[in-house]
Amino acid sequence: MKKIYIATLCAAMALTASAQQELHGGANGTPAINQDHTVTFSIKAPEAKQVVLHMDYQRDTTMTRNTDGTWTLTTAPLAPELYRYNFVVDGVKVLDTNNVYSIRDVSTVMSAFIIDGDNSPCPYSVTNVAHGNVAQVWYDSPTLGMKRRMTIYTPAGYEEGRNRYPVFYLLHGSGGDETAWLEHGRAAQIADNLIANGKAEPMIIVMPNGNVDEKAAPGATEEGLVNPTFAHKQWMEGTFESSFGDIVNYVDTHYRTLKTKRKRAIAGLSMGGYHSLYISANNPSDYGYVGLFSAAIYPMKGVKSPIYDDLEGKLKIQFQQRPRLYWIGIGEDDFLYKDNAKYTRMLDKNRIRYTYFESTGGHEWRNWRKYLLEFMPQLFK
Amino acid sequence: MKKIYIATLCAAMALTASAQQELHGGANGTPAINQDHTVTFSIKAPEAKQVVLHMDYQRDTTMTRNTDGTWTLTTAPLAPELYRYNFVVDGVKVLDTNNVYSIRDVSTVMSAFIIDGDNSPCPYSVTNVAHGNVAQVWYDSPTLGMKRRMTIYTPAGYEEGRNRYPVFYLLHGSGGDETAWLEHGRAAQIADNLIANGKAEPMIIVMPNGNVDEKAAPGATEEGLVNPTFAHKQWMEGTFESSFGDIVNYVDTHYRTLKTKRKRAIAGLSMGGYHSLYISANNPSDYGYVGLFSAAIYPMKGVKSPIYDDLEGKLKIQFQQRPRLYWIGIGEDDFLYKDNAKYTRMLDKNRIRYTYFESTGGHEWRNWRKYLLEFMPQLFK
Repeated sequence: MKKIYIATLCAAMALTASAQQELHGGANGTPAINQDHTVTFSIKAPEAKQVVLHMDYQRDTTMTRNTDGTWTLTTAPLAPELYRYNFVVDGVKVLDTNNVYSIRDVSTVMSAFIIDGDNSPCPYSVTNVAHGNVAQVWYDSPTLGMKRRMTIYTPAGYEEGRNRYPVFYLLHGSGGDETAWLEHGRAAQIADNLIANGKAEPMIIVMPNGNVDEKAAPGATEEGLVNPTFAHKQWMEGTFESSFGDIVNYVDTHYRTLKTKRKRAIAGLSMGGYHSLYISANNPSDYGYVGLFSAAIYPMKGVKSPIYDDLEGKLKIQFQQRPRLYWIGIGEDDFLYKDNAKYTRMLDKNRIRYTYFESTGGHEWRNWRKYLLEFMPQLFK
Repeated sequence: MKKIYIATLCAAMALTASAQQELHGGANGTPAINQDHTVTFSIKAPEAKQVVLHMDYQRDTTMTRNTDGTWTLTTAPLAPELYRYNFVVDGVKVLDTNNVYSIRDVSTVMSAFIIDGDNSPCPYSVTNVAHGNVAQVWYDSPTLGMKRRMTIYTPAGYEEGRNRYPVFYLLHGSGGDETAWLEHGRAAQIADNLIANGKAEPMIIVMPNGNVDEKAAPGATEEGLVNPTFAHKQWMEGTFESSFGDIVNYVDTHYRTLKTKRKRAIAGLSMGGYHSLYISANNPSDYGYVGLFSAAIYPMKGVKSPIYDDLEGKLKIQFQQRPRLYWIGIGEDDFLYKDNAKYTRMLDKNRIRYTYFESTGGHEWRNWRKYLLEFMPQLFK
């Protein structure tokens, strides 16, 4: 974002009030991110009776009409973060067509921008460090009887050397797919920045698709450009966990991986936390590091699968083998808070050691990116 | 798109006029692609005075307001093709927020959909065939003094075998970047479909970034989420052509490639055609197949570089070594038509053999996808 800062700063020093329109969009992009971390939004809609700014983590706010028909709004200073927003023009949802950056969440697309810190970039920004490669890879899942797509991050240097690397399996929530951690979670930027700054070990990050009734993200299969949906025929009923070995097998045979428990981690958000919990519990020798991010903990009513049977017994076996990290992150307003509290009480009762990280906020990407930032530096040390 | 067809068909058989709203958007997505290849667009905007549909290859058309404030429009039957569109609500450009699929062209984002054929899918659709992998790869360019990003398609089977593959370098136009052929050009889908149907050889497709003053596409560098622009500091002045060896070197050292002229192709659109022309002319032993898609032919006024000197002399040397295919595609309405005519007259004068493909239309993606469909089956036979 540095370029925008500099442009805005120079402009602000030279501008009269009437020329200030130049801050709003144009060559430097919209929204205009101002030096004090306020953000100025603008949209030209001369015929509109009302324009509302709808934005992540903020209340909806009515924008102000200027005499030329441009509606503007400047926020209070914003903390470093990735933000999404859209306009509502007389009831019609409108993306910012002066901003080419947007993020999809299930079937909702919103415009996006990033606020950096005063003296350091936001950890979700691309910075001037070595970047890992990102590939969309089709793997064979004999268990599911289909070729499926996953996203694989290989750290900077992977292509140049012969080293083997630890592997971190990073799983999305319901409504997500193999693109979610990359696009909404900024996993490649977080990894690039942590690794380059010596805060995390170089590692391969594997982001599979956890919806076993689909081969790949919406639009990437022969179903065509369908509308993404939460609804899945098979959902948290054990099949993903049972078929997960196909993914590990593909990664271990196609990449230069370290195949020991001490060099293998698994974590996920919401449904992906649930998957991480049960995959690690059913494979007690396989994962040295487990992360439950706002995790669903208990099977839904009516679900029966050996994957979910006797969790306490399985955890006892898993923890006899001492995983190096069992990390639970949850927001105080998360609708899954109570389930996580019940789960940690059970772990306490069984004298199982885990790391607990309670944040503000709820079931939201702002927290999952934060949890990833907390979790990754603890891996493979 | 099959799912949409079936849903629309079933709905159409059962519907009364009043229930027909269900065709417009909702769970099956918008726009609604009808069985007869007409498309029904809809947007709810009760307060609007006018809503216009702006669409690729069609005139702007005013939509019709229904009593509930939804504006709709059904097109004539559309030919199989990728189409982009947006609404204009009282002068405000609006993407279809019920359609998560969009395509960026420089700084313009539009909603998108694909029309399949009656009995066969559009060649730009994902079909039920084996898919190649797609990677965003950072390579070192010692000539340019930076790490840069490119997109690499490896065909289905590449990861499983030990075979070496021919390489096709596919270059974008000005305003594009390493994502253009993938997103707007549907190169991965075109390659998947041609290869699976036995119409093209399995090949590696390399899509680099032809803007030598940038490391990667907008948003993928430390410049942050800047507004993409046509303007480049260095532009068609020889530097990309001079540094192209860094790309070939990376690909030949990091992938299982066939390194002979008979197994190496280069093509590009507009500026990328210009790059392909001069890279192949300056490296007469390297490219067995050259494709100029709506190519810029002549250097801009004032540009001086040894890359562009003595083109006729260079072509004579290149053609003494008999490239297997020199393919020129141009639309009859293209603003570069005259330059291409002048160029082919010069080739004729020098008795240089080339293949000429004249299409309808102008300087547009519809043609470049079509040219790729024509060109790829002729490679590496």
